[in-house]
Amino acid sequence: MKRAGILNAALSGALARLGHTDELLICDSGMPLPRGVEAVDLAFLPGVPSFAEVLDGILSELVVEAATAAQEVRTANAGCDALLSARLPGLTYVPHEELKRLSHSSRLVVRTGEAQPYANVLLRCGVAF
Amino acid sequence: MKRAGILNAALSGALARLGHTDELLICDSGMPLPRGVEAVDLAFLPGVPSFAEVLDGILSELVVEAATAAQEVRTANAGCDALLSARLPGLTYVPHEELKRLSHSSRLVVRTGEAQPYANVLLRCGVAF
Amino acid sequence: MKRAGILNAALSGALARLGHTDELLICDSGMPLPRGVEAVDLAFLPGVPSFAEVLDGILSELVVEAATAAQEVRTANAGCDALLSARLPGLTYVPHEELKRLSHSSRLVVRTGEAQPYANVLLRCGVAF
Amino acid sequence: MKRAGILNAALSGALARLGHTDELLICDSGMPLPRGVEAVDLAFLPGVPSFAEVLDGILSELVVEAATAAQEVRTANAGCDALLSARLPGLTYVPHEELKRLSHSSRLVVRTGEAQPYANVLLRCGVAF
Amino acid sequence: MKRAGILNAALSGALARLGHTDELLICDSGMPLPRGVEAVDLAFLPGVPSFAEVLDGILSELVVEAATAAQEVRTANAGCDALLSARLPGLTYVPHEELKRLSHSSRLVVRTGEAQPYANVLLRCGVAF
Amino acid sequence: MKRAGILNAALSGALARLGHTDELLICDSGMPLPRGVEAVDLAFLPGVPSFAEVLDGILSELVVEAATAAQEVRTANAGCDALLSARLPGLTYVPHEELKRLSHSSRLVVRTGEAQPYANVLLRCGVAF
Amino acid sequence: MKRAGILNAALSGALARLGHTDELLICDSGMPLPRGVEAVDLAFLPGVPSFAEVLDGILSELVVEAATAAQEVRTANAGCDALLSARLPGLTYVPHEELKRLSHSSRLVVRTGEAQPYANVLLRCGVAF
Amino acid sequence: MKRAGILNAALSGALARLGHTDELLICDSGMPLPRGVEAVDLAFLPGVPSFAEVLDGILSELVVEAATAAQEVRTANAGCDALLSARLPGLTYVPHEELKRLSHSSRLVVRTGEAQPYANVLLRCGVAF
Amino acid sequence: MKRAGILNAALSGALARLGHTDELLICDSGMPLPRGVEAVDLAFLPGVPSFAEVLDGILSELVVEAATAAQEVRTANAGCDALLSARLPGLTYVPHEELKRLSHSSRLVVRTGEAQPYANVLLRCGVAF
Amino acid sequence: MKRAGILNAALSGALARLGHTDELLICDSGMPLPRGVEAVDLAFLPGVPSFAEVLDGILSELVVEAATAAQEVRTANAGCDALLSARLPGLTYVPHEELKRLSHSSRLVVRTGEAQPYANVLLRCGVAF
Repeated sequence: MKRAGILNAALSGALARLGHTDELLICDSGMPLPRGVEAVDLAFLPGVPSFAEVLDGILSELVVEAATAAQEVRTANAGCDALLSARLPGLTYVPHEELKRLSHSSRLVVRTGEAQPYANVLLRCGVAF
Repeated sequence: MKRAGILNAALSGALARLGHTDELLICDSGMPLPRGVEAVDLAFLPGVPSFAEVLDGILSELVVEAATAAQEVRTANAGCDALLSARLPGLTYVPHEELKRLSHSSRLVVRTGEAQPYANVLLRCGVAF
Repeated sequence: MKRAGILNAALSGALARLGHTDELLICDSGMPLPRGVEAVDLAFLPGVPSFAEVLDGILSELVVEAATAAQEVRTANAGCDALLSARLPGLTYVPHEELKRLSHSSRLVVRTGEAQPYANVLLRCGVAF
Repeated sequence: MKRAGILNAALSGALARLGHTDELLICDSGMPLPRGVEAVDLAFLPGVPSFAEVLDGILSELVVEAATAAQEVRTANAGCDALLSARLPGLTYVPHEELKRLSHSSRLVVRTGEAQPYANVLLRCGVAF
Repeated sequence: MKRAGILNAALSGALARLGHTDELLICDSGMPLPRGVEAVDLAFLPGVPSFAEVLDGILSELVVEAATAAQEVRTANAGCDALLSARLPGLTYVPHEELKRLSHSSRLVVRTGEAQPYANVLLRCGVAF
Repeated sequence: MKRAGILNAALSGALARLGHTDELLICDSGMPLPRGVEAVDLAFLPGVPSFAEVLDGILSELVVEAATAAQEVRTANAGCDALLSARLPGLTYVPHEELKRLSHSSRLVVRTGEAQPYANVLLRCGVAF
Repeated sequence: MKRAGILNAALSGALARLGHTDELLICDSGMPLPRGVEAVDLAFLPGVPSFAEVLDGILSELVVEAATAAQEVRTANAGCDALLSARLPGLTYVPHEELKRLSHSSRLVVRTGEAQPYANVLLRCGVAF
Repeated sequence: MKRAGILNAALSGALARLGHTDELLICDSGMPLPRGVEAVDLAFLPGVPSFAEVLDGILSELVVEAATAAQEVRTANAGCDALLSARLPGLTYVPHEELKRLSHSSRLVVRTGEAQPYANVLLRCGVAF
Repeated sequence: MKRAGILNAALSGALARLGHTDELLICDSGMPLPRGVEAVDLAFLPGVPSFAEVLDGILSELVVEAATAAQEVRTANAGCDALLSARLPGLTYVPHEELKRLSHSSRLVVRTGEAQPYANVLLRCGVAF
Repeated sequence: MKRAGILNAALSGALARLGHTDELLICDSGMPLPRGVEAVDLAFLPGVPSFAEVLDGILSELVVEAATAAQEVRTANAGCDALLSARLPGLTYVPHEELKRLSHSSRLVVRTGEAQPYANVLLRCGVAF
């Protein structure tokens, strides 16, 4: 088996395929999945796995150059907003409806079991060289 | 979205298909997956989700009439053995090699991210009526 | 097998995949199925299973925040209208032709065996948290 | 839509394909589905649709020349046994374990929502000419 | 096997799926098949099976509320026109080119072996209740 | 469209693929289809198309060097036996059960709508050079 | 095996599916294949099989009512132009770029091994009755 | 397009996948295709392309270390035997029935249009280093 | 196995399918893959295989009549620019964003492991005759 | 894109799926691929990528507890043998024919472009905890 890192087979394959400027949505368990976008469903039970666990696991393997979250997260889920700010310094906020529209052109959705509101982020891939 | 319970789409479908005496393997992230058996890969990172979380989530939705674990779990992973004993009173132990052989005739494998040894159990479905 | 709840494998999987604002059509056996939308065909014979049985089974597992029916149901099928009003207080009515158009953007269709007119409803999913 | 009879698309197709001596299993919701056999999952909720509804619907469209049930049905589910005897005069009984083995060579399984024990029957198709 | 009626497996399945206002094209062996529409190819040899045989077989199982044929059939194939008029009282005629365009939004095409000109009809499904 | 001959797309493709000694079953509508063998379902209604029509259509395009029928056809369906004898001089008869066993190693099954007993023949392809 | 005529399985099937006014492109080995159009790749080596062999083989089985070639063929490949004129009296010429555009709405492409320029023709199917 | 060599897309891909000791059958148009073996159907018309053309094209791209033909070719098709002897010095002969059996373990079949008897050869791949 | 040249099975097949004016993108490991375009993923590790290795391997088998690169390569990756200029005399430069847009209408993407910036080129196929 | 490590999407997914005692074959470009085993084809040209590059890349991500090579490598390819000995201390040697047999029960084959003899190794996965 692998020495370390992400163990999920579908997710490992999908992450390796991403290129510069491709976008990836990490979302809570209630986010509507955009049609026609590859989705890896990690959700098991409400809260398992959490948005924070999945975000950190993906950031440790992926180069990210920009990120977008729903502005509603700032008031409705301050813990998640703090996490996003700490991990993604240049984070941009857009209305949640706009984030849903943007997700339709992403290349990959990773669905977590998170059960707190607005725990979603759209990551734009950077390049490792 | 669903009111409660298991959120994973593939797993929800697969559990609904199981009948009386069908067997289901819940396994740690290092267990070799038996060929030709439907597998739902919940593993994300080492330990996420844990064997305990997945076992409890599945037991809350499935009727189970018997269970089998590796006898090695008793000495090598006492915490997991305690969990299994608590949740599955009539648990049977077989050598780990035998458990692997038995897994080839199961109907479903649920792979967790568990990263402790011998955290595997083969559940035999009961019937709800 | 499962302890309780919806037993259909395809439907269990499809319901688990729905997110906030995704729409689901529960329809009678004569409703034209919108192209390209996942459909679970529960219809067996005329009236088996009924619209009422399927509606209640799905409402017990799904969070619903809004619903739309054909205004023709009010006069042509008062029993169904009474059921819809009882179960879905904020129900909206639109002309049947409009309901058919709206069904094209739904994520899932559940076809019942119902054999009475206008027994259709479009449910919009809410969120469990 | 169809004038009458079975409305389920997958089941209508599968029944039309059956030939003389092909076997069809109608089963309750807890019967383990034999691997590699086409299955039409009509089960919705426990008891919906019932074994009796599905049996009668299929008998009205299919020529049947022989039938086999579990001998356990005679004592454990007398109502179902009465139904089987009434509908299928030359019914043969075998032990439930043998019925499960026989189901592996059937051509089609129709899973009902029946939630009473031993409500299963293996039908052998006759020929219409 | 089935007691009576349409024996073709693919056609039996496809007919059961049709709903109110869905359209079905029955066509001669020279009609261009519209792209992306499910087609059941019953054509064997020129004239086998005939348009008349297939039309009558389908009308005996399907509720039809409207029908459209090519106006060219009236002069070029009077026998077929007489058949259509007898079976489908409210038949509408459109130019053959228009019929071809209309066929692109049908849900099902049934291709016969008919080898006489303009033996095509677009049936609009009614509802059985 | 094609100038003449067999118009069915699936059948035209399948016949072109047959080689020397490959076997083809032409059968009535009640014959059980052997598992895992490609089948072209020409059956529409009982008797449409007939075994005789399909046999003659295929013999006009295929080189046949041997043929096998059920010995039961000689007494139970003399008309069919006369047809087989006239078309296939060196015809061999075996018990019907044996014919069914032999059909499992055929490369193609063509199902007709024939509704008279024992109207089945296994053709062994010859070579055109 | 077949008595005579086209032996290729994929091509035999595809030709049988063509209807009146459907278009078929026969092309040299350098023609860009239009996306989304079924293609039968007969090309083996440069010149094997030739455009002339494939054209004649297809014309012997297909009813053709019109044909279009690139006007460049008249000067750049006089031998091919002579062949086209002899086989297809009412041939229309368009610029090669226009022929490529027209090929996108064809139903079938047959790629030959031809290695001389502008050896392409778009055939429009006629009807055999 | 490619500068030279084999132009067929499916064949180019399949040849690149062959390894040391993998076997490839080049056959005439009447050879029965072994089940479950990848087949590239180059046959167009009887004799097009010929066995000789295809053999030479493949030998120019493939390392071959051994070859087997039917001993019947020596008397029934001396021209083909001469070709095989010239191209494949260490050729082994086996009875035609044995050659058919051996073909079942080959990795690839290339079907030509050859219409002369026993024009078949089983090539065993060598290695280029 | 093959005597020489490109060994990758998927790539060998895809190259053989390309026609005159079809475009092929060879890219570094960070280029976003255009949706819906066939992609052959040769990337193993950063730098393995290099852009230069893959470019030379493909040019040795493909006729190329034009090429386009990102103008940013001239300053940001002079070594790659020198390679491109040496291999592809009439090279055109466009802004990198424009190159990404152009890649959406290519027929094939070959992803290398290259880990230096702007190592991408869009090749337009010529014709070998 | 990924920060580091293996970039190939198919290989990243396949490696993540391997469990304890699953076997993986890394092979040269001439090794026959075992049927029915998932294969990732990294081979581009002879020697690209090399066996050494691929071995080292995979060893850096995979836990390996045992390895088997062909005993012929010791004399026929001393460089490769030295590499194997350095990287895999407890390496076992078996005859090359035996290695080929063992490869049939592996879970994954990674084909390199290596063009030197006997550059193959079967790795048995260990576990990371």
